[in-house]
Amino acid sequence: MRMVDLIEKKKLGGELSEEEIRFIVNGFTKGEIPDYQVSAFLMAVCFNHMTGDETFFLTDAMRKSGDVLDLSGISGVKVDKHSSGGVGDKTTLTLSPIVSSLGIPVAKMSGRGLGHTGGTIDKLESYPGFVTSIPEDRFIKQVNDIGICVAGQTKNLAPADKKLYALRDITATVAEPSLIASSIMSKKLSSGADAIVLDVKVGDGAFMKTVEEARHLAKIMVKLGKDAGKKTTAVLTSMEEPLGNAVGNILEVREAYESLKGNGPKDFMEVVYTLGTEMLILSGKYDTPESAKAAMEEVVENGSAAKKYEEWIIAQGGDPEIARDPEKFDHAKNALEIKAGQDGYVGSIKASDVGHAVMSLGGGRATKDDVIDLTVGTVLQKKVGDNVSSEDTIAVLYGNDEEKMRAAAEEIRNSYKIVGDAVPAPELILDIIR
Amino acid sequence: MRMVDLIEKKKLGGELSEEEIRFIVNGFTKGEIPDYQVSAFLMAVCFNHMTGDETFFLTDAMRKSGDVLDLSGISGVKVDKHSSGGVGDKTTLTLSPIVSSLGIPVAKMSGRGLGHTGGTIDKLESYPGFVTSIPEDRFIKQVNDIGICVAGQTKNLAPADKKLYALRDITATVAEPSLIASSIMSKKLSSGADAIVLDVKVGDGAFMKTVEEARHLAKIMVKLGKDAGKKTTAVLTSMEEPLGNAVGNILEVREAYESLKGNGPKDFMEVVYTLGTEMLILSGKYDTPESAKAAMEEVVENGSAAKKYEEWIIAQGGDPEIARDPEKFDHAKNALEIKAGQDGYVGSIKASDVGHAVMSLGGGRATKDDVIDLTVGTVLQKKVGDNVSSEDTIAVLYGNDEEKMRAAAEEIRNSYKIVGDAVPAPELILDIIR
Repeated sequence: MRMVDLIEKKKLGGELSEEEIRFIVNGFTKGEIPDYQVSAFLMAVCFNHMTGDETFFLTDAMRKSGDVLDLSGISGVKVDKHSSGGVGDKTTLTLSPIVSSLGIPVAKMSGRGLGHTGGTIDKLESYPGFVTSIPEDRFIKQVNDIGICVAGQTKNLAPADKKLYALRDITATVAEPSLIASSIMSKKLSSGADAIVLDVKVGDGAFMKTVEEARHLAKIMVKLGKDAGKKTTAVLTSMEEPLGNAVGNILEVREAYESLKGNGPKDFMEVVYTLGTEMLILSGKYDTPESAKAAMEEVVENGSAAKKYEEWIIAQGGDPEIARDPEKFDHAKNALEIKAGQDGYVGSIKASDVGHAVMSLGGGRATKDDVIDLTVGTVLQKKVGDNVSSEDTIAVLYGNDEEKMRAAAEEIRNSYKIVGDAVPAPELILDIIR
Repeated sequence: MRMVDLIEKKKLGGELSEEEIRFIVNGFTKGEIPDYQVSAFLMAVCFNHMTGDETFFLTDAMRKSGDVLDLSGISGVKVDKHSSGGVGDKTTLTLSPIVSSLGIPVAKMSGRGLGHTGGTIDKLESYPGFVTSIPEDRFIKQVNDIGICVAGQTKNLAPADKKLYALRDITATVAEPSLIASSIMSKKLSSGADAIVLDVKVGDGAFMKTVEEARHLAKIMVKLGKDAGKKTTAVLTSMEEPLGNAVGNILEVREAYESLKGNGPKDFMEVVYTLGTEMLILSGKYDTPESAKAAMEEVVENGSAAKKYEEWIIAQGGDPEIARDPEKFDHAKNALEIKAGQDGYVGSIKASDVGHAVMSLGGGRATKDDVIDLTVGTVLQKKVGDNVSSEDTIAVLYGNDEEKMRAAAEEIRNSYKIVGDAVPAPELILDIIR
């Protein structure tokens, strides 16, 4: 088999066999097939796409390129949740203790953030002392002991995907559904879960800009999961404006905790409960959306979800005082109120601009080696659909550098579009693919 | 400027500016832009093609990446002829002395062959002692002295094209008209000629399989030549069956010389005279095709073209006795007659199979470092349209290894399709693009 012939085949619109795709993935991972042939192949895939079978073979070959987590030592149905990433997305922090307190084991390997969407691991490290690098046996023990553990990725999961993604990133071959789907699913299928709920973000602050693209991607991923023998559901959620009010690491952690205390922003809780419903149904513990939602609301109201959260943070070494009282987190030096400047209704808030503004304050990584300033960020006071007067504060900015804050405040103010006519509250849950 | 953005632009169907194309060509040539980005770009070009302007900028950037031959020391209008290569194509050997003896200076840098189509330089080296590596000053002096010199490429012409072609070859990105045209024309425009005649081969034994593709390519190349200020004409010639009768280095040289003696195969002479007519008209020395053709026929009939040929071969160190009497060439050990095996008419002869058969005898290079056996090859006795009886010899095979010859004879026999009904002689000149 020669790589040049396989490139040609894909270029001419042919369908590659399992053997041919395995040849490419293994050859590339071992360094036997050079980058320049693989990038030409990837570009041909961007134009001619991949069939369902090809995408499955690619996913499977990447999954098998490295370790596969064995979670069989944990009793119960393990349901993993994956988000494609968005601005203000602290869902994992709130959702995990809720489902855990309902008896669903949460055994999650999570990533760090890059760009304007923060990673869960970065957010958790807002707690001084919090440990994310945990050996597999201790990881499993903690889940069995308290029902929840979220760790950084230590094992070598799907290294072929890692290498392929790095190449895609610099050859303009990222935006192809079959490649995105196989990249996400090869990692998810290595992570040992019995069932998978995918949160596919749609809109300005997400990678997928339209519902159509997102639905297409979601369908591919759900099929890949099912074909690999895992129950899989995808929820399309809106990422036009930031999710919830807080954007920035410590600010988001506080909001996540406050949400467990019953004070969560309405849009955020809707996403949390929708994803939670799918997880609880896939776990087999609940039969109907109504019973699942009622159970989640109960553990929030009676405080057991917040208690599970504190237990979890403390079990992984996080400062117990801060775990129980987020007021004790470090604070940014300065706060700056951003005014509406005109009367009307919030028509839209460009999520990507808010994300960028927080990143410019030091709240996100532009490159892998950047150190994050955990204290900075913004808390939005007004969201899409809200009525505002000129003197109203639409958002508060938190930062440590006044010059940077002035520029960021300008960017956030401009991310708001204030209009004359009333605006309906935006639809958040755009579709569910089961 | 970032290469990844330029790849994205071409992927999305955008048109690159002169500055952007120059950035790519220069960055790649200097090694500043890696192979894997360029191959992704090339694949995007295969799908979205290049506009006329882009193709011109690419050609120009590649041409300027290296040396440009200065032939201003040669008096007269220098007309270069380029062939896209085919089986049995010994046109340069016959055509060059014809036009030279009519006062057109022939100052040609030529390439070696790869695959089943032999190169002119390889064929000329059939003469013991023939020198192809000639310094520029001696090259120019020989043209001024005797009107003709054909040398191997010594200068660093269009190195960007060389590097790009090597990458295209292994990434399945060869077959794109804008890339083929810019590759050919960047070299031709570096070679110092005042006018260019392109012989674009069409059919089974050529790179271009259909007249439509060939015409498209020819139009791009003619425009590129004209836009660069050179008179340029392209002739589309058929390469369904081999050109002339001989295929194989020494056998072809003999046929080329015999053609100058007035014994050329009909189809071969038609191609020679057609290309020659275009050269003579571009030179400005002849006004009409009729006068040009009559002049060529005269120098063949009166022997001055053959004399020019001998003078040329001897001037470049070729053995004078062989130059004047090709019977004195080395001969292959064995000859094998291939019979028709059935009565009828020759319906077709698959040129690529004949080329492959001769290559399998050692007559061509599979890799750059292969040594060619100059004596082997075949001489076809029957061509398309000829009437044959079962016992007729359709071709004679010459070789030095009986086992290989048996396989090659089988392949050549199978390359002939003999049919029951009479077949018209094939059309050779398919189009002329001026």
